Amino acid sequence: MDFEILRIGQRLVRDDRVTTHVALVARAFGASKIYMNEVNPEIKDTLNRINETWGGNFEIEIITNWKQLIKEKKTDSRKIIHLTMYGESINDLVPSLQKEEKILIVVGAEKVPREIYDFADYNVAVGNQPHSEISALAVLLDRIQKGNQFLTKFENSAREIIPTKKGKNVIMKETMDK
Amino acid sequence: MDFEILRIGQRLVRDDRVTTHVALVARAFGASKIYMNEVNPEIKDTLNRINETWGGNFEIEIITNWKQLIKEKKTDSRKIIHLTMYGESINDLVPSLQKEEKILIVVGAEKVPREIYDFADYNVAVGNQPHSEISALAVLLDRIQKGNQFLTKFENSAREIIPTKKGKNVIMKETMDK
Repeated sequence: MDFEILRIGQRLVRDDRVTTHVALVARAFGASKIYMNEVNPEIKDTLNRINETWGGNFEIEIITNWKQLIKEKKTDSRKIIHLTMYGESINDLVPSLQKEEKILIVVGAEKVPREIYDFADYNVAVGNQPHSEISALAVLLDRIQKGNQFLTKFENSAREIIPTKKGKNVIMKETMDK
Repeated sequence: MDFEILRIGQRLVRDDRVTTHVALVARAFGASKIYMNEVNPEIKDTLNRINETWGGNFEIEIITNWKQLIKEKKTDSRKIIHLTMYGESINDLVPSLQKEEKILIVVGAEKVPREIYDFADYNVAVGNQPHSEISALAVLLDRIQKGNQFLTKFENSAREIIPTKKGKNVIMKETMDK
């Protein structure tokens, strides 16, 4: 399955760090790309550095018109999943979501435009209690993929962790081009 | 099973918002309590407001000596789980963790004291790629409880969400004492 993420509604500087964590979760849990608006461009540098160190081809694209993007994705048969504490329970929706081929997961910051509820093919609640868009995205991607995202190797990494009982075991590889 | 959380190593103001999200995840995913050090005390007010609005008895305690706390918890037969990207895979450890009765989950900020790896009964990696302590905690609690945490009612809430396909459906209740 192909996962893309759209982060919208970010307006406050204090959201920068949360948005960075959203992007890191997207990458670590197997999404191919994140689109963002109204974002501090430094976040691209942060994620590029993570790709260089830890591998993979995760992409960030900064956009200005998120409605246009959603329309294009819908035309391309990509299903729109909106994460919201007001939606239907993830416990009920996962079997349907697992049957989809291409999805765009919309992750809102505190204020989300009302229209997104109607654009969405699924409004998914990861519980009906307030927590965090970071945790909501992670649990959704984990459930859909049944944990198999953690078996994926990230290609061309400079470092690789060898899981270990105590402490840290990291392979430092030579990188090809620097 | 009884879950408690210990957040350590927070030093930077920029971690305040992340720590708030960690506490919200702990509450929404069924932990009874979070212990924190070096934290902005406003976080207690934030969580108390969440309890008033959305129910439950989730507790925050600000502590000064986290090593002492871990020792007490170990004496009380509580198992110590440390979340770290360097640990053993969550995919392998969940069956063992599900058999425990009382656990303390240690959630470190960026710099974590070396000793914690030795104090821990389990060093658990929610994948071996960098993401967020918020997502790591959420996925761990979700996996151990198999999603059943979302069936729990939070008692004495002023508001309750009725899950719905589109938009928001919230019951506004009368509160008892205000």
